[in-house]
Amino acid sequence: MQDRTYTADAEPGDHVTVAGWVHEVRDLGGIAFLILRDTSGKIQVKFEKDEMNEDLVETGLDVARESVISVTGEVAEEPRAPTGVEITPENLEVVAPADPQLPLDPSEKVDAELSTRLDNRTLDLRKDDVQAIFEIRAEILRAAREHFREVGCTEITTPKIVATGTEGGTELFPITYFGEEAFMNQSPQLFKQLMAGSNLERVFEIGPIFRAEEHNTPRHLNEATSIDFEGAFCDHTDAMDVVEGVVKAAYEAVSANCADQLEALDLADEFDLPEGDFPRLTYEEAIERINATGELDEQLVWGDDLPTEGEKALGADVGGHYFITDWPSEIKPFYIMDHEDDEQLSTGFDLMHPDMELVSGGQREHRYEELVAGFEQQGLDPDQFEYYTKMFKYGMPPHAGFGLGGERLVMTMLGLENIREAVLFPRDRQRLSP
Amino acid sequence: MQDRTYTADAEPGDHVTVAGWVHEVRDLGGIAFLILRDTSGKIQVKFEKDEMNEDLVETGLDVARESVISVTGEVAEEPRAPTGVEITPENLEVVAPADPQLPLDPSEKVDAELSTRLDNRTLDLRKDDVQAIFEIRAEILRAAREHFREVGCTEITTPKIVATGTEGGTELFPITYFGEEAFMNQSPQLFKQLMAGSNLERVFEIGPIFRAEEHNTPRHLNEATSIDFEGAFCDHTDAMDVVEGVVKAAYEAVSANCADQLEALDLADEFDLPEGDFPRLTYEEAIERINATGELDEQLVWGDDLPTEGEKALGADVGGHYFITDWPSEIKPFYIMDHEDDEQLSTGFDLMHPDMELVSGGQREHRYEELVAGFEQQGLDPDQFEYYTKMFKYGMPPHAGFGLGGERLVMTMLGLENIREAVLFPRDRQRLSP
Repeated sequence: MQDRTYTADAEPGDHVTVAGWVHEVRDLGGIAFLILRDTSGKIQVKFEKDEMNEDLVETGLDVARESVISVTGEVAEEPRAPTGVEITPENLEVVAPADPQLPLDPSEKVDAELSTRLDNRTLDLRKDDVQAIFEIRAEILRAAREHFREVGCTEITTPKIVATGTEGGTELFPITYFGEEAFMNQSPQLFKQLMAGSNLERVFEIGPIFRAEEHNTPRHLNEATSIDFEGAFCDHTDAMDVVEGVVKAAYEAVSANCADQLEALDLADEFDLPEGDFPRLTYEEAIERINATGELDEQLVWGDDLPTEGEKALGADVGGHYFITDWPSEIKPFYIMDHEDDEQLSTGFDLMHPDMELVSGGQREHRYEELVAGFEQQGLDPDQFEYYTKMFKYGMPPHAGFGLGGERLVMTMLGLENIREAVLFPRDRQRLSP
Repeated sequence: MQDRTYTADAEPGDHVTVAGWVHEVRDLGGIAFLILRDTSGKIQVKFEKDEMNEDLVETGLDVARESVISVTGEVAEEPRAPTGVEITPENLEVVAPADPQLPLDPSEKVDAELSTRLDNRTLDLRKDDVQAIFEIRAEILRAAREHFREVGCTEITTPKIVATGTEGGTELFPITYFGEEAFMNQSPQLFKQLMAGSNLERVFEIGPIFRAEEHNTPRHLNEATSIDFEGAFCDHTDAMDVVEGVVKAAYEAVSANCADQLEALDLADEFDLPEGDFPRLTYEEAIERINATGELDEQLVWGDDLPTEGEKALGADVGGHYFITDWPSEIKPFYIMDHEDDEQLSTGFDLMHPDMELVSGGQREHRYEELVAGFEQQGLDPDQFEYYTKMFKYGMPPHAGFGLGGERLVMTMLGLENIREAVLFPRDRQRLSP
């Protein structure tokens, strides 16, 4: 490839060839400036028209914004330049010219409509703040995996093409698999449980899940990234410890390693690490506190699901991440264990960010007879799940786990208004392309 | 959870509660031994019948193999025990009894049929060697990601539900997406290219790909893990450097961090790191060397695809990983760049293990007009790919990339006979469950 020294963040005195995009051109008459942008940042290129080769000046000043160019020259200090340095070009080559009519302009200060941005993600990700979101997302995933390994987990990959869904036939995308009906998996839960029963014992997976939900809201996706954990010899409190550790590790890693990205998002001064232990409220305490806020028209009673405004009122009251535990068994899935001493109480838990639910988890039903009975009570045919249930006959240890919504973690951490901003190419009711 | 001190690898003098699976029971009359197994290994539990509580002895000796038990007691040195220590139990609890009729016996020395193993993965992964494969697989993925970050890549996630395939309509699994026809993506290529044109510049993804190929061989899967790279301002030699780095990093990490796992697989003495630079043979050199081996009935001529026996002969001749470069353009995909000075020569490359192809990659066509013409020549409608091609009008830098088959990397590294051994729950023509 061309001799690119690969740095818009070059130092004075360097003789460089930089290649990148034309971010901006300012022609002041006798002198002109071109701002060249690459993944590392921006650098000014100076054109002194009377002192430089005419062709070079013409090429540099005529090139359309967002074209790719390569510039060779000396880097010098220049306090008035945006980054304090500038290049005086000896050579300039247009590597890939851009059409002057851009569907989205990366140098615009004003944000385009989200749908325009998503239609033109290549251009959209030439903006510092959008680039920052996805660099932070990558750091969150790295930190999550590192934490899982620290607590003894093995990374697994489970199939995305499945014969049956986790909770039966609803909300599944059907596939034709060599003439047979199959589905895209809505959760790795059954498979990760099967691995908790293996010698791996503690496993994690970060991968896609697919939900054919009709919701079209700023916080739902039809294809999302799930951060999953399952651990043998764990109960729900162990699983809560693990997820609390993952979330804190993600915040700490972003704080430690993404200073430039937080700056680009205007979050450098207001990025707070979660402090202390996440409070663990029982469902009963939660409804009491929601009722006490007076934000709901009607008081909640035992057995009610928590309405969104209730969650918001409680979130504002608590002021940070918190767990809700000890839910009524009847509103948690059948495969979650009930408390040993109270069958009305589930070991299911949710981890909440003040703005929304991030996680649901719990200890699983590991007893074969109870599990099969649960399928039947749910109106599901246990035979269809035999590939899963039969393993519970051969020494399935108690185990617990959770699923953490990857995009929701990014969205809440960065205060994004729409979950689609945390996905490169979101899939929703309307959007199947790009 | 029960007070599990979580170690079959306990030290003499420890007072422990260990929980795990009953691997084996040997009753010698006055004395009996139970081998308890967990993720960390095995430990002997000793029953001296005359000196111990009768109920405890009975529970311990009557329990079926693969039941989950919890044992509390003192750990003492015992040179005759398999791991040099044993527990004298004070308490023993059956946590999850197993049915005595096991469909697969983890303590059997002889391997069961692969299909039986895949039907019973939970039990299969209670064998040391199978557990080792998946722990090594996790380490390979960790090391690959680490190497990608070291060379400046950002991790991305691209959609698995897509409107069109990478190379048109063949070999795609159709999905019904809210009444519309869609497909499961066969490669992240188009999306990662769109990101190479963004400010991320260099990206990687490790995720599932789906291919509706009818092949049913020991080295094909219909759902596989692809390790993908795409980098702006890279040519094919840069992409070869990156993939060589990834493969070497994976071998080095396994060698450094998976000694126990290699031991379990009987590979401790024969696990060699790739030495020196991977040879880069041109296609022309490759066919000459294959012809010189005399292994083929007919001599290969320029333009021929390399037959499997040819690859094998060349692999045996080279004796390690190697690249094949400079293929005839006509047998590489249209979206791969030709050499600037010779249109008959493609910049496409393959990375070969002596046993099989691991990678294909190359520099991509980044010029809009040429790309659209390529779609047309291929008989594909460029309009269907407009979401992708249009971004090439707005300053698409030269870029190159590759896709590395994750399971093939595991399979060749460990000398597995069937690629399904490198997947927890493989998907093939016949297998959709579990």
